Amino acid sequence: MAKTIAIIGTGVIGAGWAARGLAHGHDVVAWDPAPGAEDRLRAAIDNAWGALERQGLAEGARRDRLVMLGSVEAAVAAADFIQENAPEREELKQDLLARIDAAAKPEALIASSTSGLLPSRLQARMQRPERFVVGHPFNPVYLLPLVEVLGGEKTAAASVAAAMDFYRSIGMRPLHVRTEIEGFVADRLMEALWREALWLVNDGVATTEEIDAAVVYGCGLRWSLMGTFLTFHLAGGEGGMRHMLHQFGPALKLPWTKLTAPELTEDLIGRVADGCEHQAAGRSIKALERRRDDFLIELLALVQKYWPEAEGLQGRI
Amino acid sequence: MAKTIAIIGTGVIGAGWAARGLAHGHDVVAWDPAPGAEDRLRAAIDNAWGALERQGLAEGARRDRLVMLGSVEAAVAAADFIQENAPEREELKQDLLARIDAAAKPEALIASSTSGLLPSRLQARMQRPERFVVGHPFNPVYLLPLVEVLGGEKTAAASVAAAMDFYRSIGMRPLHVRTEIEGFVADRLMEALWREALWLVNDGVATTEEIDAAVVYGCGLRWSLMGTFLTFHLAGGEGGMRHMLHQFGPALKLPWTKLTAPELTEDLIGRVADGCEHQAAGRSIKALERRRDDFLIELLALVQKYWPEAEGLQGRI
Repeated sequence: MAKTIAIIGTGVIGAGWAARGLAHGHDVVAWDPAPGAEDRLRAAIDNAWGALERQGLAEGARRDRLVMLGSVEAAVAAADFIQENAPEREELKQDLLARIDAAAKPEALIASSTSGLLPSRLQARMQRPERFVVGHPFNPVYLLPLVEVLGGEKTAAASVAAAMDFYRSIGMRPLHVRTEIEGFVADRLMEALWREALWLVNDGVATTEEIDAAVVYGCGLRWSLMGTFLTFHLAGGEGGMRHMLHQFGPALKLPWTKLTAPELTEDLIGRVADGCEHQAAGRSIKALERRRDDFLIELLALVQKYWPEAEGLQGRI
Repeated sequence: MAKTIAIIGTGVIGAGWAARGLAHGHDVVAWDPAPGAEDRLRAAIDNAWGALERQGLAEGARRDRLVMLGSVEAAVAAADFIQENAPEREELKQDLLARIDAAAKPEALIASSTSGLLPSRLQARMQRPERFVVGHPFNPVYLLPLVEVLGGEKTAAASVAAAMDFYRSIGMRPLHVRTEIEGFVADRLMEALWREALWLVNDGVATTEEIDAAVVYGCGLRWSLMGTFLTFHLAGGEGGMRHMLHQFGPALKLPWTKLTAPELTEDLIGRVADGCEHQAAGRSIKALERRRDDFLIELLALVQKYWPEAEGLQGRI
């Protein structure tokens, strides 16, 4: 059933939400104070639409079901679900969310796309903070399935559940972040890698192109299938993660990064290894390896098809 | 032309090298002191062989061109290229490399698969250290193309070049790491993400399954195509990396990880942004976005085909 989604702030992330909403057959009402925002928003949706058509549009999905209005209040007045995508400044978001809250229907859900600010602080000036959640997506929002969902101290559990249901209904995979922690889960991982990558450039060790090639042809290919833990589970051979942690764990203490590492206690080893065994669900390492290999062959062909210039490595030598 | 490759140490990495060498039509002579090593090595090659067949074997490639011999010295005696894959203990590798060096033909190249130990230290006890390089691969070695190549203080430039040529001849993409730095490039990135992932488990924020799902459905999907820098170049909208660094740079200072971040000087911003613009090679952000999107649609279908159980996210809610 078509809903009305309000998109507050229409940069890269807001435009991505708008495209996803339209592709799923909803009405989208948007607001952004920047000059030229509407043209940029419509151009971004046009650029995404071909991919969305190939993926399959919902019945009734049309780009002209987007309207841009002149005030936050007007944009949210009729909305069932409101997604805020303002710059990452806590005060600015607090003010905006208070205005959204005051103008929205009482039963509307209000979500923020913040990458890492705490929902308890963002909801501080709202009159109905119980209906507020963080719903943190990943660029391109209209294709990537992950959305991290978390509530603040005053958020009702029902609001978290309802937001997750809504995100599922528009083709996403919500991850409930149960601990209110800055940066949530995915951005902490990304930031860790990102900081190290910046150090490598900063110290003149490698160029951005070399670092990207190292990710594309080395670690990244595996992560897109099975993440970091299950990838290392397979690095341990038949002994899996537990063997891997005991064999390579000491390297965590080597000065390989500018970072500090947690103590590899038996408790932590247990939790990590048990988690991997749960994920493997009784499949043998060999069976997992065969499946990974079949995937990698197809993925490598895809990378070659779409990114032939990433011959970069050859060119740099 | 078929060469003889010696594989010293036949765990997960050594077995991967053996499989890659055999698939490219070479003779492989292996040694490993562990009881049962030969059975495990042959089983690992059998498990990989189906994938290698689908990828296409070189003329004359056969699994029975592998022999396992009873000593390091015997294994390396006839080898043109020697790849050492012993545990990550510097003293152990130094001893082993000295033995390899003493027994090998004078013109043979000697490489170590070390993930992060320094070549200048590994070659310390060799009589011909000029022919020694690090050639650090990624699991599964028989499929992943990346190999980091670096020499130590006593390595001849010609040896680095010859090793890179050899790795290219067996289907790899060598990355020359020009600075001798612990952990090289890719492992520093992996370790940074890995440490943060361990902290998240350690602090009870998320399970390994949730973290893997966050990588698979969020950041990892993009990294396998374009790495971390070009991914963020597209997060900046039409302004690209430069805009992205100015807008999101301040978040590097937030306590989103347990790590320290480099100062975002104008110089660093310039190097990072210029690198991305070089990689984009004049293509517009919109054109890059369309290509990324087409890739992601096919990749998402691949992930679904090969890893349907990674419905994990739904199960955890």
